[in-house]
Amino acid sequence: MAQLLRVQNFSVSSDGVAAGEAQTLESPFGLPGAERLFSWAGATASWPGRTEPGGSRGLDDYFTRDFSHHIGAEIMGRNKFGPQRGPWTDHEWRGWWGDEPPFHTPVFVLTHHPRPSFTLSDTTFHFVDEEPAAVLARAREAAGGLDVRLGGGVSTIREFLAADLVDTLHVAVAPVEFGSGLRLWESPAELSDRFHHESVPSPSGVTHHLFWRR
Amino acid sequence: MAQLLRVQNFSVSSDGVAAGEAQTLESPFGLPGAERLFSWAGATASWPGRTEPGGSRGLDDYFTRDFSHHIGAEIMGRNKFGPQRGPWTDHEWRGWWGDEPPFHTPVFVLTHHPRPSFTLSDTTFHFVDEEPAAVLARAREAAGGLDVRLGGGVSTIREFLAADLVDTLHVAVAPVEFGSGLRLWESPAELSDRFHHESVPSPSGVTHHLFWRR
Repeated sequence: MAQLLRVQNFSVSSDGVAAGEAQTLESPFGLPGAERLFSWAGATASWPGRTEPGGSRGLDDYFTRDFSHHIGAEIMGRNKFGPQRGPWTDHEWRGWWGDEPPFHTPVFVLTHHPRPSFTLSDTTFHFVDEEPAAVLARAREAAGGLDVRLGGGVSTIREFLAADLVDTLHVAVAPVEFGSGLRLWESPAELSDRFHHESVPSPSGVTHHLFWRR
Repeated sequence: MAQLLRVQNFSVSSDGVAAGEAQTLESPFGLPGAERLFSWAGATASWPGRTEPGGSRGLDDYFTRDFSHHIGAEIMGRNKFGPQRGPWTDHEWRGWWGDEPPFHTPVFVLTHHPRPSFTLSDTTFHFVDEEPAAVLARAREAAGGLDVRLGGGVSTIREFLAADLVDTLHVAVAPVEFGSGLRLWESPAELSDRFHHESVPSPSGVTHHLFWRR
């Protein structure tokens, strides 16, 4: 079985925005109102952060629970890992996610400033300064035969798309418009030359866009 | 975490028919053209019976690959297990599925004519002559904390619905009409008093109906 590189549950606004320029410790997405991009997933029964019973088990729940299914490693950009830029001043920052990150697999963080790997619960973070194809080869080896998730952010996904390394994408387009910010695309149609494309409206107001390689 | 009883990927025609009356060894569904109920799943990349590469990775693929996700046991009616009726004349019949059944969990077969359990590959079949609630209790215990799939056929699903034991249902309605046969329902609206209901049209022509307990 081929090991796919998959974008899963990546949420953007109707104008393609997934984050803002002004990332800080207090604003991981650098975008006021960013939570409106993810509320579709937070409303489902399978949302990992759910603390109360309940939640929908409709279409959005299928996507939410598929997030970790058959995934053996994640690749993410440094800005998804943290708000720092440039050389690390210390190694105390261990991601946004506390002692139990939601990945449960090896995670490869793209950075020009590598630092030692470390493990939190069942997630190990590795820091790599390599080209996309080389990072993907590492992640595939670490994934134990399973697929690799491309976790974002925007510039990481665009970089892997430019290198033609992405096999499937699921992008949730939320019914909110930001006007400015970091854009995944101007329009989903940009991918239609290389990918099959299905667009599935959910009763929650989100539209799920599914792409797979032609 | 509650252990849900889930109907997964159960396919019916636009008039609610899932099987015919004339089940035989040669016609497991007793319904000419029954394969048109399932062609949506067969076209996906994740279809377990796929022998060639390819297949779609759109919406239908999510449902196909979710079939076994977080499932620890299945309950099925005797007619799903085989075409025989009444007392077993021998125990040579071991299901339709050959040496590697697609369940990979314990399976509880409802029958008034129990026979010894047996194992094929990683599937063990148990034969039980008990009320739905008692069978469900057994299946939950065998499922090791995971959910239980209610595998059908029609009369088994209706029996568990009547006992109010079903937590979620995914029913795929295929664009084919049979006119007569064994019906799951006259209309999906029959379930709306007890279940939330989402109806999601797929580009393949199938409509996925999702229900979860109110």
